Amino acid sequence: MTKGEETRQAILARAFELATVVGVSGLSIGRLAEEMKLSKSGLFAHFGSKEALEVAVVEEASRQFVQDVMVPALRKPRGEPRLRALFDRWLQWGQRPGGCFFVGATAELDDRPGPPRDALVRAIKDWVDELAKATRIAVSEGHFRDDVDPDQFAFETYGLMLGGHTFSRFLREPKALDRARSAFEALIATARASASRTK
Amino acid sequence: MTKGEETRQAILARAFELATVVGVSGLSIGRLAEEMKLSKSGLFAHFGSKEALEVAVVEEASRQFVQDVMVPALRKPRGEPRLRALFDRWLQWGQRPGGCFFVGATAELDDRPGPPRDALVRAIKDWVDELAKATRIAVSEGHFRDDVDPDQFAFETYGLMLGGHTFSRFLREPKALDRARSAFEALIATARASASRTK
Repeated sequence: MTKGEETRQAILARAFELATVVGVSGLSIGRLAEEMKLSKSGLFAHFGSKEALEVAVVEEASRQFVQDVMVPALRKPRGEPRLRALFDRWLQWGQRPGGCFFVGATAELDDRPGPPRDALVRAIKDWVDELAKATRIAVSEGHFRDDVDPDQFAFETYGLMLGGHTFSRFLREPKALDRARSAFEALIATARASASRTK
Repeated sequence: MTKGEETRQAILARAFELATVVGVSGLSIGRLAEEMKLSKSGLFAHFGSKEALEVAVVEEASRQFVQDVMVPALRKPRGEPRLRALFDRWLQWGQRPGGCFFVGATAELDDRPGPPRDALVRAIKDWVDELAKATRIAVSEGHFRDDVDPDQFAFETYGLMLGGHTFSRFLREPKALDRARSAFEALIATARASASRTK
């Protein structure tokens, strides 16, 4: 990395942390510049606009998500073990200060069309597709039965995570993550149980 | 209702609609006063503070939710039919312009302690308790098996709704609501299927 790339990356790492707490729109160029000991114009030079900074922050969030959640899970055996690792890591990801960046940003950018929203839709679709792919592999490995719908499984898993996140962070329900885990176990048991029934 | 109460109610109805789209914090006293043809101080007199207005808007949202979702469902027979009606009405509620008030406000007030957040936590807990209660009735009516955990069922149903809302509004997935309905059917089938197995 050149010095310029390093600075850009350092700005993004801090901007991502801040955005997880204050939201993407809540990012202040002034505050970010102050924290990075840069002038506002110096910071701006790395991105060109507030909007471009927001897009870059969404992409940074994706990069960290891939690194923290997906890469370790991909080291696990294909099929059910990998799917479980994806779910576990994902729950951990949501326990950061400020919670899950993606959940917060979804509500924030929902009614704000434009490049930051588009980047976030891409990131979330990639993640849902990754869950569906891991489910498809669990089918092809014989862990799940043949008629499990991977997209439906991914949808239901995503819903559980959203429920766990809301119950944990917003309602401060102490059993929230246990409930999410039990629900995930039930989902897996259903995908499996029928496998042993039909095979 | 006195004239003052009528005006207050009219302000709240409009404030609720606006807040569903722009968020609770996004409510502008100025804009609201203009729309209601009141002076800012005249509007303020009804609430006393922006914070008190926000609390009143959360309570208005709850009132409308009870009226649109809960009251019609309570007319259905106890047990599974009532639970289904709650779920159907809830999906419809999320289809309003701006989506579900409660989902948006949850993300918005998550990290903002204070009376508006407390009011929202109360409203959502009431709703989750209502779902658990309807599930408990489905057990006592013999529609669901005895060992179904009503709180777990309510948690999972809540997660499905959150998933349906995100996939529909944010990802603009055309099958989102069908996926939520299928998942709810699967949840009911599991609660029931085992009933027919154990009884």
